[in-house]
Amino acid sequence: MKDKNGNVQPPYLGAAYYPEDWPEEEMDYDISMMKKAGITVARIGEFAWHKMEPEPGTYDFAWLHKIVDTLGEAGIAVVMGTPTATPPRWLIKLYPDVVTQNADGVKTNHGGRRHCCSNNPEYRKYSAAIVEQMAKEFGDDPTIIGWQIDNEIYASGDGCFCPHCQKAFHEKLEQKYGTIDHLNRSWNLNLFSQWYDAFEEIPAPCHAWHNPHLMLEWRIKQNESHVDFVRMQAEILHAYVHVPVGTDTMPFNGMDYRDMTEALDIVQFNHYNVPDNLYCSALWFDYLRTLKEHPFWNTETATCWNGSTAIGQSIKPEGYNRVNSWMPIALGGEANMYWIWRTHWAGHELVHGSVLDSTGRPMHIFGEVQDVADSYAKTADFIRETRVATEVAFHFTSLNWNMFSTQSVVSDLSYMDTLNQSFYKPVIDSGLRPDVIDAAQDLSAYKVLFSPLMMTLEEKGLETRIRQWVQDGGVWVVGPLSDIRNSYGARYTHEYFGFLEKLTGARWMYGIPDREGRVAVQWNDGDAFHGDKWYDVFDESPENTLAVYTEGHSAFIGKSAIISRTVGKGRVIIVGTIPSYDDMKRIVAMSCDLAGVEHGRSEGSVMVSPRRGSRNGLILIEYANAPGAYELSREMKNLLTGATCSGRLELAPYEIAVLEELP
Amino acid sequence: MKDKNGNVQPPYLGAAYYPEDWPEEEMDYDISMMKKAGITVARIGEFAWHKMEPEPGTYDFAWLHKIVDTLGEAGIAVVMGTPTATPPRWLIKLYPDVVTQNADGVKTNHGGRRHCCSNNPEYRKYSAAIVEQMAKEFGDDPTIIGWQIDNEIYASGDGCFCPHCQKAFHEKLEQKYGTIDHLNRSWNLNLFSQWYDAFEEIPAPCHAWHNPHLMLEWRIKQNESHVDFVRMQAEILHAYVHVPVGTDTMPFNGMDYRDMTEALDIVQFNHYNVPDNLYCSALWFDYLRTLKEHPFWNTETATCWNGSTAIGQSIKPEGYNRVNSWMPIALGGEANMYWIWRTHWAGHELVHGSVLDSTGRPMHIFGEVQDVADSYAKTADFIRETRVATEVAFHFTSLNWNMFSTQSVVSDLSYMDTLNQSFYKPVIDSGLRPDVIDAAQDLSAYKVLFSPLMMTLEEKGLETRIRQWVQDGGVWVVGPLSDIRNSYGARYTHEYFGFLEKLTGARWMYGIPDREGRVAVQWNDGDAFHGDKWYDVFDESPENTLAVYTEGHSAFIGKSAIISRTVGKGRVIIVGTIPSYDDMKRIVAMSCDLAGVEHGRSEGSVMVSPRRGSRNGLILIEYANAPGAYELSREMKNLLTGATCSGRLELAPYEIAVLEELP
Amino acid sequence: MKDKNGNVQPPYLGAAYYPEDWPEEEMDYDISMMKKAGITVARIGEFAWHKMEPEPGTYDFAWLHKIVDTLGEAGIAVVMGTPTATPPRWLIKLYPDVVTQNADGVKTNHGGRRHCCSNNPEYRKYSAAIVEQMAKEFGDDPTIIGWQIDNEIYASGDGCFCPHCQKAFHEKLEQKYGTIDHLNRSWNLNLFSQWYDAFEEIPAPCHAWHNPHLMLEWRIKQNESHVDFVRMQAEILHAYVHVPVGTDTMPFNGMDYRDMTEALDIVQFNHYNVPDNLYCSALWFDYLRTLKEHPFWNTETATCWNGSTAIGQSIKPEGYNRVNSWMPIALGGEANMYWIWRTHWAGHELVHGSVLDSTGRPMHIFGEVQDVADSYAKTADFIRETRVATEVAFHFTSLNWNMFSTQSVVSDLSYMDTLNQSFYKPVIDSGLRPDVIDAAQDLSAYKVLFSPLMMTLEEKGLETRIRQWVQDGGVWVVGPLSDIRNSYGARYTHEYFGFLEKLTGARWMYGIPDREGRVAVQWNDGDAFHGDKWYDVFDESPENTLAVYTEGHSAFIGKSAIISRTVGKGRVIIVGTIPSYDDMKRIVAMSCDLAGVEHGRSEGSVMVSPRRGSRNGLILIEYANAPGAYELSREMKNLLTGATCSGRLELAPYEIAVLEELP
Repeated sequence: MKDKNGNVQPPYLGAAYYPEDWPEEEMDYDISMMKKAGITVARIGEFAWHKMEPEPGTYDFAWLHKIVDTLGEAGIAVVMGTPTATPPRWLIKLYPDVVTQNADGVKTNHGGRRHCCSNNPEYRKYSAAIVEQMAKEFGDDPTIIGWQIDNEIYASGDGCFCPHCQKAFHEKLEQKYGTIDHLNRSWNLNLFSQWYDAFEEIPAPCHAWHNPHLMLEWRIKQNESHVDFVRMQAEILHAYVHVPVGTDTMPFNGMDYRDMTEALDIVQFNHYNVPDNLYCSALWFDYLRTLKEHPFWNTETATCWNGSTAIGQSIKPEGYNRVNSWMPIALGGEANMYWIWRTHWAGHELVHGSVLDSTGRPMHIFGEVQDVADSYAKTADFIRETRVATEVAFHFTSLNWNMFSTQSVVSDLSYMDTLNQSFYKPVIDSGLRPDVIDAAQDLSAYKVLFSPLMMTLEEKGLETRIRQWVQDGGVWVVGPLSDIRNSYGARYTHEYFGFLEKLTGARWMYGIPDREGRVAVQWNDGDAFHGDKWYDVFDESPENTLAVYTEGHSAFIGKSAIISRTVGKGRVIIVGTIPSYDDMKRIVAMSCDLAGVEHGRSEGSVMVSPRRGSRNGLILIEYANAPGAYELSREMKNLLTGATCSGRLELAPYEIAVLEELP
Repeated sequence: MKDKNGNVQPPYLGAAYYPEDWPEEEMDYDISMMKKAGITVARIGEFAWHKMEPEPGTYDFAWLHKIVDTLGEAGIAVVMGTPTATPPRWLIKLYPDVVTQNADGVKTNHGGRRHCCSNNPEYRKYSAAIVEQMAKEFGDDPTIIGWQIDNEIYASGDGCFCPHCQKAFHEKLEQKYGTIDHLNRSWNLNLFSQWYDAFEEIPAPCHAWHNPHLMLEWRIKQNESHVDFVRMQAEILHAYVHVPVGTDTMPFNGMDYRDMTEALDIVQFNHYNVPDNLYCSALWFDYLRTLKEHPFWNTETATCWNGSTAIGQSIKPEGYNRVNSWMPIALGGEANMYWIWRTHWAGHELVHGSVLDSTGRPMHIFGEVQDVADSYAKTADFIRETRVATEVAFHFTSLNWNMFSTQSVVSDLSYMDTLNQSFYKPVIDSGLRPDVIDAAQDLSAYKVLFSPLMMTLEEKGLETRIRQWVQDGGVWVVGPLSDIRNSYGARYTHEYFGFLEKLTGARWMYGIPDREGRVAVQWNDGDAFHGDKWYDVFDESPENTLAVYTEGHSAFIGKSAIISRTVGKGRVIIVGTIPSYDDMKRIVAMSCDLAGVEHGRSEGSVMVSPRRGSRNGLILIEYANAPGAYELSREMKNLLTGATCSGRLELAPYEIAVLEELP
Repeated sequence: MKDKNGNVQPPYLGAAYYPEDWPEEEMDYDISMMKKAGITVARIGEFAWHKMEPEPGTYDFAWLHKIVDTLGEAGIAVVMGTPTATPPRWLIKLYPDVVTQNADGVKTNHGGRRHCCSNNPEYRKYSAAIVEQMAKEFGDDPTIIGWQIDNEIYASGDGCFCPHCQKAFHEKLEQKYGTIDHLNRSWNLNLFSQWYDAFEEIPAPCHAWHNPHLMLEWRIKQNESHVDFVRMQAEILHAYVHVPVGTDTMPFNGMDYRDMTEALDIVQFNHYNVPDNLYCSALWFDYLRTLKEHPFWNTETATCWNGSTAIGQSIKPEGYNRVNSWMPIALGGEANMYWIWRTHWAGHELVHGSVLDSTGRPMHIFGEVQDVADSYAKTADFIRETRVATEVAFHFTSLNWNMFSTQSVVSDLSYMDTLNQSFYKPVIDSGLRPDVIDAAQDLSAYKVLFSPLMMTLEEKGLETRIRQWVQDGGVWVVGPLSDIRNSYGARYTHEYFGFLEKLTGARWMYGIPDREGRVAVQWNDGDAFHGDKWYDVFDESPENTLAVYTEGHSAFIGKSAIISRTVGKGRVIIVGTIPSYDDMKRIVAMSCDLAGVEHGRSEGSVMVSPRRGSRNGLILIEYANAPGAYELSREMKNLLTGATCSGRLELAPYEIAVLEELP
């Protein structure tokens, strides 16, 4: 897609390109095939530090200029990556301590990626230098439409245990807790005589059965170290670069993407979901959309399969690439980029799915890529002139992600999996398009707010803002396992919840684990209700009760499992268990009805994205490779087929419909 | 329960209480709720070293006196724990080598429990000092009815590999074997040229494929180190304290509880069994009862579920707490104590089941705890005035536990699991109450002795005593996998058994592994017999044969699997395989009939504990949450219901009956 | 078996014997039982270094002479082992660095086997010395019929990471690649900025996500280190010894047995297969036969089960020992030896199956051993006067084994398992006796060659020789996953195959992973065809196509999965997937028909070994314990039964037939 000046315009269809790993003479062929495929943007540069700086302080960018220029001449825009994920061997030789260490003090070897510690000053120094050199060289290059800092930076496993990381951890604790006694008391360290006399005595979370508060703070600090490292690069780039700067992230291990993108201009995001969990990407897109004004970029996804030296996946059903390529665009992004343009011929990842095989031959998916390019072209104006519009919100926060990772209340409860399967999927399958929001997000635009698994609400004043929003008329669906810990991960000592009882007047009695079917619940209308893993029991009047316990223990049979309390002009529905898919859809319907939010127009697995702007419409995505349908509220035109539609619109498996309201 | 002087009397209902982890003002509330629940004993102090000795040599017991006094004033007795399981951070700072090390030399961090090595001299010195200070302070306190040394002390995993442990290992070997050549020959160390030239050359069992004899001795010594550490504390306490001193143990990893309790006055025992394996606690109670004259204390068990930061269990069926709380009392103990009174509000174990939730609200199980307190009160005199009476014994020894852990003969054979499931359960389900005895126990009181999985009988002269006991008329059910190793874990070289052939005249031919059903056996009456994992084949005459092989290999079809030999006035039944549950019950019945021991009055899973003393009776426990029954031999009164019973007494699921013989 | 001079003659029936681990007085009994069992050869010495050299440089062979002499006097021949697998403790004391190290630098402890590093100079020095001493002592001993160097020497796991190994790795790389830039380019090390500036900078494959080329070279060098160590011993022995010298190997971890046996006179081989995978031994025998002129020795196999301190197996079906003992003889060997003669009474492996139990009593298998001895005796002349004769070959190479271990293309693809199950078994069940050949083997004798999973053909000029052989009329069945990597494990950049397209003119389009059944294939006659894990798609004309795709993706439905191309006088059949058992048999039949090779005379699991020489015949082995049959082409005499047979010969489960053509 290009504008009238010949500049590439969104929505972008891109691919990661590593010409430095190939003979120079391959470039013309590759570019000709990119044109044929409909690729408009190439992501380059991210792992080529050694080629840019073959010896310390000696830079060579001529080869890279040539690549950028050749792409530009061919009308292909460039996203330029800083190569800090792959420091050259000479850096490790100069400073052997620059690498990450595991808990046993074993150092990571050169030979992979991200082997240097983000807190290491020498690594930071050399990273800053190469970034500044690149920025000077390419800051004004018109072919470059955006920058990418580093690559998929996050704390792997438990992170790095090097002395710099331990020091940073201690400094963070001192900054947060002020005095060591405050920390000791906050973490209840009389318990087990753990009491520390100084911040620097606090160990990293290894080689002992550590308390969950220490483990939580460690995770938070490990992620912050990477945020700091990215911010350092952003500050350098911003001095030279005038196009958006981002960092391509991966949804792993509790990274806080609001923090990560604070100093950046754009959210860049990589995902490698597969048919079974494709909808989990939608949760991320619904979240990323809320972080920046600028539409996000899906910087990496696979055309067909993942693999380094071995493929563990099967061929994806035909049409999957269409849905996978459209989802980020439909949900508020402006780019979809494949990893990788052409499979590496040697080294790592030499069997990864791509657009071209390492032989240069098109992969079987090539035609599907062309179709995506065509469909983008047909709808580009509509995409650019509209934004996603929604009335409901759905909570997700990194603090709670990390808190569940360090204390999951019931075992085998994965925060992300449960959030996706038990809560998010029923919401989107109800025909809703939620904003997925974190604690910082303003609530005023929403009529319904879902807050499951928000173990703590003590984050960025959220508690106060929710209180006001409910008083003003919001419908808040909260729980299970929400508001049960303070910001350190400690329990409340006189009430089970931080403020839910005070807000609603409800009274919690018991929390009950069960995965053997000993507990049973019933809706007021007599329908059986099946929860999972955890049950909160409330002592509540029948008029405020939606579902009661029918089996479990005589101490709580007849008591309430789901309650609904009027608060000011609003309503609070407390869900006392992890509901089944159907029961969660029932809760969604009840809460939307209360709030006057339209729902239930989807049949099957049809995801809807309402679009508003200078034009109006909606995008439908059948995401389960099965027939689906959507009940249109008015006559619309399908911009992909040209057909006019109204009433019940049937969608074929993996069909996309881009629908514009007729005037 | 209190006596006429207002002193708390057994049976005790107790709970672990950590007031040092809570604001002082919570204590009155907690105590009022203890009174309401019927709790008569609080276990305190065990993890509070830092609070008692905030700096090296500076002690503060004022706060602890206040707690003891407040409890005492409320009529709640105290069990005082020494806090040596949780040394303060300053000890590790002063002596960084005081902590345990893994096989790679990695040191355990501060932050959990039991991180210091029981063999470390500095740790021992500071432990002795805090224990002596506590003993001086509280030795005469009338509220304290017992002391507990440390907490759940045992060798975790392979134990500690620090230099002190390695030295202790070498000293133990020298003491046991005398000369290095004796060790080399005993362990057959010409094999693989392993021959050592000095004791100090012998490695810890890591980083090589080690022989089983070395591994066995290491396990034994690791446990002994903890026994020594406890003994050191006991000697200090005994100088100041006049109530029983014990240590609360966990049934893990081959610890020898006879050794452990030798220097102590009382057996204290923690267990966290669940419905499916509750009967395994009974084996322990049947064993612990034999170790000391004083009735044992069940110092820890859960009211409802375990959990540190995550609960892996489900709500237990109603009534489980009754059975779990009654079992130690019925089987010869005088205390049942819950862990924990009130769930921690932060730190470790903040989701563990308790009596009060961390909010202070009663857990759903609160009423069940009250019921237990009531039932203890109704029967307290009967419990105190009677002892468990039995005619049968069942072997269990720590040496064999450790030997199976280091050479299990057939893979996936867990000594404890097989002992419980394949042998102990059929015995107790036959309506027998066995003493579970180790090698040291006198045999003269028993008519039947079961010795399965007694890999070695070379322990404390057991062989000689069994020989005499059988000659005098005992019925000995022995095997499988018994008497097949000497005390070092070596095989015999000319006979398969150490003395079974010599004792009985039987002749062993083959030992056959099978878990694919290739081997089949038949009782003499033609019933099929199904063994498991291992089969011994005997060349035995039909008149001494109870079961023969019908499938497997022509070398042994028609040969004998279970044989019965008259020896002196007694009988030896050698069981050549791990029998099924039903076949083991058949063996139990045969042997009891031979010995004139009454059996078979139970139906279902009803455990019986005959009680004799100044009054007589029995206690029945339905332990499987299913209907059961027991055929009474005479008219009795159920002290819990007041009803008079005779003949077939039906028990409801999880019912307890405390029955006294009518005069 | 003895010749007319009283010397023991092949086929040998032997057992490993460790008299040094037993009292001297046991030897007479053991030898009398060997005679009874029919054992003609004892393997001794292999682990007795400490007894031979109790102190550094002090040798004692008197005891060993006595053993050899006593065996010799009893008419039992000896295979003498060098004891270098078990260095004495004093060596580790003198040189603590002599032991292997893991990736974390943790040293292996004394206490097992093979704990010293084959690259360590001190270990080599002392090994050379003990071997030379032994050679001098026993080089002319007439009782000794062969020597065995060390025992089961191979790289365990990832091998040794000690400094000597790292240095050897760097030297190997320098020798192979010449310059570091050549290595950097060959491994595509611009990728991830991995570029090395010197060979000594290259890390061992640990503590990073390493590239597959580095991992491949490490594996190759680790194995070469052991080959060098064995060669060093062979050179010493050859100066003194006049009987065949070998080393008893285990089929593990990519060892190259051609390299290993290059400096040796004979192939010695240990295996411990069980009924389910017994045929996998046949692949090894078919391979080992091709390495040396001298018939190989099966130096170790179990009579009944394996076990060190625990047995994980079940009793084997009766007759299994017959088949297991006959297979090496039938397939070209001249010895079958059991491990172990008499189970160790202590130390390691004290529950291993044997001929005598540690008690000295015969195991249940004793009669089966006697039967084997009898059957060898009846057929010995025929065995000695004939050799295995075959017209087909089947590729297996260590380079490809190692390459699949470092990059398996699709996950969970084990080279050896897939080779055995999906390719080798259908070949032998088609009544063929293949030579299993590596890349060095001359092809001219064969009419059909199977080359599945030959990831690289760039080995020892194989590509050129295959090209010529096909031109000359050979029928080559190649693929899947063959010819897709160069010798470094890199992909080709312009064609998928190294030379298959050039050779045949075929055109590869796509490679597709699938394990969910999304891809389907059909034979030309309409039969459904089921492949596994991987599918190659060819753009091929119908006349050259044997099977086409019917499901998967519209990009390749109707394209070809198996193609057949005429090349010169020969034919190339490219198999694009891992076929099912039945489909592979179909491919075998088609290719044999094309080549005029007889096939299909077997029914069930009857393995055939045609024998040619001064007499002619064949040996049949029913190897699945089920009825089978073979269609004889002429009248023959069964040397085991004396019966004359013709036409369809039925074999009972586990029956052996040694058939000689009647004149």
